[in-house]
Amino acid sequence: MQNGIQGFLEGRYIDLSEHIQTDLHIELLKRTPSAYLGSCRFKLPEIEDNEDMYKKIFKMLSNLDIGYFFYIGGNDSMDTIKQLSTYGKMINSSIRFMGVPKTIDNDLAETDHTPGYGSAAKFIATATKELIRDAKVYGNENIHVVEVMGRNAGWLTASSALSRGEDCVGPDLIYLPEVPFDIDSFLAKVEETRWVKKSIVIAVSEGIKLKDGRYVCELISSQAQFKDSFGHMTLGGTAQYLANTITQNFGCKARAVDLSILQRCSSHMVSRVDITEAFVAGGHAVEAAFRGETGKMIIFNRVTNNPYQCTTMPYDIDKIANIEKKVPLEWLTNDNTYVSPEFLSYARPLIQAELSPIMVDGLPSHLYN
Amino acid sequence: MQNGIQGFLEGRYIDLSEHIQTDLHIELLKRTPSAYLGSCRFKLPEIEDNEDMYKKIFKMLSNLDIGYFFYIGGNDSMDTIKQLSTYGKMINSSIRFMGVPKTIDNDLAETDHTPGYGSAAKFIATATKELIRDAKVYGNENIHVVEVMGRNAGWLTASSALSRGEDCVGPDLIYLPEVPFDIDSFLAKVEETRWVKKSIVIAVSEGIKLKDGRYVCELISSQAQFKDSFGHMTLGGTAQYLANTITQNFGCKARAVDLSILQRCSSHMVSRVDITEAFVAGGHAVEAAFRGETGKMIIFNRVTNNPYQCTTMPYDIDKIANIEKKVPLEWLTNDNTYVSPEFLSYARPLIQAELSPIMVDGLPSHLYN
Repeated sequence: MQNGIQGFLEGRYIDLSEHIQTDLHIELLKRTPSAYLGSCRFKLPEIEDNEDMYKKIFKMLSNLDIGYFFYIGGNDSMDTIKQLSTYGKMINSSIRFMGVPKTIDNDLAETDHTPGYGSAAKFIATATKELIRDAKVYGNENIHVVEVMGRNAGWLTASSALSRGEDCVGPDLIYLPEVPFDIDSFLAKVEETRWVKKSIVIAVSEGIKLKDGRYVCELISSQAQFKDSFGHMTLGGTAQYLANTITQNFGCKARAVDLSILQRCSSHMVSRVDITEAFVAGGHAVEAAFRGETGKMIIFNRVTNNPYQCTTMPYDIDKIANIEKKVPLEWLTNDNTYVSPEFLSYARPLIQAELSPIMVDGLPSHLYN
Repeated sequence: MQNGIQGFLEGRYIDLSEHIQTDLHIELLKRTPSAYLGSCRFKLPEIEDNEDMYKKIFKMLSNLDIGYFFYIGGNDSMDTIKQLSTYGKMINSSIRFMGVPKTIDNDLAETDHTPGYGSAAKFIATATKELIRDAKVYGNENIHVVEVMGRNAGWLTASSALSRGEDCVGPDLIYLPEVPFDIDSFLAKVEETRWVKKSIVIAVSEGIKLKDGRYVCELISSQAQFKDSFGHMTLGGTAQYLANTITQNFGCKARAVDLSILQRCSSHMVSRVDITEAFVAGGHAVEAAFRGETGKMIIFNRVTNNPYQCTTMPYDIDKIANIEKKVPLEWLTNDNTYVSPEFLSYARPLIQAELSPIMVDGLPSHLYN
């Protein structure tokens, strides 16, 4: 399917074997940013609200002689698998529906982590490390507020802490959406840090919210508000708002850095552990479907952190879809302005090892469609 | 000197041989973002305005038994070399003053290019290529405006065009500060592109200016204006302003992506040609100073594009300092909304080959001070 179930409904699907004919194509695919098949923001209606749409989909699947249906993605995609497998069971369809986890958000329930997260975390930690170094270049007082993706779960923002090591102090403060954000406490914490450090780097989730439930970025008067078909509001400007607030309160230089789309598409800097696991999850989904499983998603179970070992297994989609897994509150420390060693032990294995880009004429090469 | 001449005046200088003791340290230094010795935004006064400062500097140099003075940087740094070598000649000092070019801006006169540019260009082209791919993921209509550094010279923004190749169409429109920016022509060009393409990526220099000389980012009412000691205004928000303008005019989704500080500190993705040349320029400066040269900067002369060959030579600093080299207007095409094949032939050799990061525990390792 191109652009997921939305493209399928429009009759847009391809035979992937025509696109991926050699092992080199597979290697390029592993290094190609974004989703080769495209994505969508289309939410299937409840079955009782629009059974006709389900009838249409199953008619199309039957016409194409589809026996196995795999859907790769995050929470929204798993909702699609849930609905389709539920309808499949209702009509006694023999089609097997399997979810394959893949989201940088790492917010799927029941699974230890999601493929995609490790690579994004590796890029975020790398960029944070480089930014921290750059911020010291003039030896002056300055504050950088780095905005990281994450609407309700702070996994990506937390990964900025991985930059801490023998050659980097890491970010000074980290704010996740798991706990209510308070502007006054934030400013007090910044002031406290200013007493001991000249160059301060703060990582914040785009989705941090006030006690009353409003996003911090909603405080920006000019902020245009868009919602997608899943009802998600477009977020943005959180770091800029906080940087402005710091300047207004302390008169010192504060700059916002939005890692923006780069954090989800920087395929030139990926984790080999992550890319390998993405393929393992896909492979296991195929194996499980052939064995007769349906209405499941492949989850990861961690055996040990060190050495890192994970196993995979299919798991009931009803217990996964529409549930967001957040960073456990016990992994937040220091007045909820940092993450614990437990988080670092959890995340560190996921960013290990590299998958070097295939460079052509000075730039990473991608699989082109 | 730490933080350049400013730190020197404050008595902050180090013995580099204590920091860099092994070949591995040199390899880490090549991969360390920002400037290991720090930088400054301090402009030396005119000699006649404050001869005392020059007397102080030369007294300090004499006390430290300094025979050779090397200053690494861009236009502002070369101004410092110019002033110091001029004063040195006035007082018949035997100290040799040499400039070593290093700026991502590529805007130094007389030299074919500057070390630093190739690596930044490689990152910008890579990020642009990944963004273009990401922008197509939903198959919907969308416009991304990518903001690239460049106050008066468009070298960095132009490098986004290097992303064009057999697996990428490249950005659709490119706006450099070399030509006045006109909002109406811009919107007309965007509309024209919308007829033929769903997903549009536009690269703009942060420093694009209107016909009347105002920066486009000055049109943002809330924009706070800071100036540094060289009189440079803090720029920012150009892409956001243009994205908002597009949305207001066409009602379509437009998003700003600011490559921000990442474009100057992403040392995990550098050009080996560039890093090698940076060392060649430094080495040649030392050799020339030992030979007795002073008041010069090392410049690059291009012999051929293909195969790429450059030679270096010392060049009179008075003909370099305080002159900004801009992108030649004949390298702009298509109503000044793209760059020519000549630009690509010029820039492509500079982004070639990689210098792999030294990875430790999943992240690039830096030389720590």
